[in-house]
Amino acid sequence: MESHRYAVIMAGGSGTRFWPASRSLRPKQFLPLGPNTQEPLLLGTVRRIAEIVPLSRILIATGVHLVEATRALLPDLPAENILAEPIPRNTAPCIAWANAVIQRRDPNAVVAVLSADHVAEDEAAFRASIEHALTVAERGVITTIGILPSRPETGYGYIELGADREDGARDVVRFVEKPDLTNATRMVESQRFLWNAGFFFFRASQMSEAIARHLPALADGIGELDRAAERGNEPDALARLFPTFPSVSVDVGIMEKTSPLAVIPASFGWSDVGTWQTAWELAPKDPQGNVVPPNCVAIDCRDNIVADWSGQSSDGKVVALLGVEGLVVVQTDDALLVMPRDRCQDVRQIVDALRAQGRIDKL
Amino acid sequence: MESHRYAVIMAGGSGTRFWPASRSLRPKQFLPLGPNTQEPLLLGTVRRIAEIVPLSRILIATGVHLVEATRALLPDLPAENILAEPIPRNTAPCIAWANAVIQRRDPNAVVAVLSADHVAEDEAAFRASIEHALTVAERGVITTIGILPSRPETGYGYIELGADREDGARDVVRFVEKPDLTNATRMVESQRFLWNAGFFFFRASQMSEAIARHLPALADGIGELDRAAERGNEPDALARLFPTFPSVSVDVGIMEKTSPLAVIPASFGWSDVGTWQTAWELAPKDPQGNVVPPNCVAIDCRDNIVADWSGQSSDGKVVALLGVEGLVVVQTDDALLVMPRDRCQDVRQIVDALRAQGRIDKL
Repeated sequence: MESHRYAVIMAGGSGTRFWPASRSLRPKQFLPLGPNTQEPLLLGTVRRIAEIVPLSRILIATGVHLVEATRALLPDLPAENILAEPIPRNTAPCIAWANAVIQRRDPNAVVAVLSADHVAEDEAAFRASIEHALTVAERGVITTIGILPSRPETGYGYIELGADREDGARDVVRFVEKPDLTNATRMVESQRFLWNAGFFFFRASQMSEAIARHLPALADGIGELDRAAERGNEPDALARLFPTFPSVSVDVGIMEKTSPLAVIPASFGWSDVGTWQTAWELAPKDPQGNVVPPNCVAIDCRDNIVADWSGQSSDGKVVALLGVEGLVVVQTDDALLVMPRDRCQDVRQIVDALRAQGRIDKL
Repeated sequence: MESHRYAVIMAGGSGTRFWPASRSLRPKQFLPLGPNTQEPLLLGTVRRIAEIVPLSRILIATGVHLVEATRALLPDLPAENILAEPIPRNTAPCIAWANAVIQRRDPNAVVAVLSADHVAEDEAAFRASIEHALTVAERGVITTIGILPSRPETGYGYIELGADREDGARDVVRFVEKPDLTNATRMVESQRFLWNAGFFFFRASQMSEAIARHLPALADGIGELDRAAERGNEPDALARLFPTFPSVSVDVGIMEKTSPLAVIPASFGWSDVGTWQTAWELAPKDPQGNVVPPNCVAIDCRDNIVADWSGQSSDGKVVALLGVEGLVVVQTDDALLVMPRDRCQDVRQIVDALRAQGRIDKL
């Protein structure tokens, strides 16, 4: 039986929390922030999904300003598999367009949607979850993967678990937007909620129908794009239409309004690597708990993370730490950041200060 | 009356404690570590002494590897006033050679010897002390300046004060080498001891006689140099003879054996700027106690010092500090150092580690 499986990797992003390593032209997915400190997150995401879906059927949806960097990172990906959004319009337009492109190629396609910037430490478990989700989606139910929560995180949305399903998944009772700490704690303790990690699985035709029902303006625009594509001038239509699409997430615009939905509870060491703190947690450490590149000399140091993005080779530039603990030190050719790990949620303050000073070349 | 005053500034040094700003080819005297963070220490020393001794009679004794950098810093200094020691042989050979060069120019010369890498916050008081010391030396007594101690410092030698002299100076009872903390504390509490800051004042002829008496082998070598200079080939003789000179300090080799000696007690805000801690103490600070260049963004930071020696202009490279306190952050084009201020005595450990790794390009 011929497979109709496709994957869409959403790889937009701005790049504030990992400044100065992440920049407007080098957002998080281009950084090697996971357990493999040589592998950019996007590369890991493509590598993992490519074990299930061939590269020729993996599409990367990204911003037009990131196309060049994406091509450079993925030279074997067909050029037409990079979808360049003229401006960011959240995930519903992104998925709707990618879904349309896939449907043109294969009306019977089944699509896996993933974010570019996450890690999965247990890759065998990751593959099993994806396979399971695709199987459920192939039977005609829009499906997601929910991550078993390990803490009352307020930075994620949650998915409430419903009844067991015959296909081995669970029903989705509802999607919950990012909660406050009280509600997050209550949800985690109830063991009835999973983290929404942005994985979605569906038949392309079914997603088209859901868009037509819940986001008719978007469906109209996508229809215009399809007709333009038939006439061979999709790029012009895209530049004209995309900015008019409603800026809404697929969670709010589609998923919260759709029933039935299935969810696969999963626990494969998922992380969206939200801060340098998480990067430190994930990375291999020396016996003193330091995450340091080979060009680093660390004496009497504990639990630091050093990231060197300067253009010189790792042999060329020395980073020396003496008697420091719990610091994040990030250097690039044109910027240096030093902060304690427990302040890494606040990097945005630096970025905001630079923007206020008009130093947009540093953003 | 024609003045016969000359100055010799000893400007050797290796550059360990201010690594990575200080390097073998850019030791401490080339760094702006004093109250004026735009003025390299050597430039400040020349500027202050040039108010008493004209530039044409200021000699800089330095290592051959530092001649180019010294010329670049002092373009108006006559080239022949830079004395290039083929190898470092401590201060007695340095002063003996400089003294000989001066004596050839002016047999009636009176010489002020100063170290290159110090600051004097009260420049009027500094000038008054130097004038006083030169006056005493002109009357025929080898003279020094002793700094009123503000703490039981174990990194300096001390000078014991004797009786008042008619010329307004005090007799020197003895020179004391670097003491342990107990002895340093006892000396400072007694109020009879001053810091030896390496200032010496003498008639050139008198220094020649003292060298002949106390370091006859050195005197012989200097005599050979004088004869070679008469024949016009001092450089060759220097390269041959200088390495054979006894490596001894002027304190131990001459001063401790000489009597009478006069000392001028002084208190002009002297510091030899021994560590980044001292540099932080001396430098102007922002209201949060930070010493930071204009290209620095510091949020929720206190009492840090940032030194940026990277080649880019100060506008070009951003240094961002978030939520850190009491840190020293030093960056150059090829190295970065981060440590707490209270570890700055231990920078040598980093330098030693780099040397052990064979990375001598970083030293």
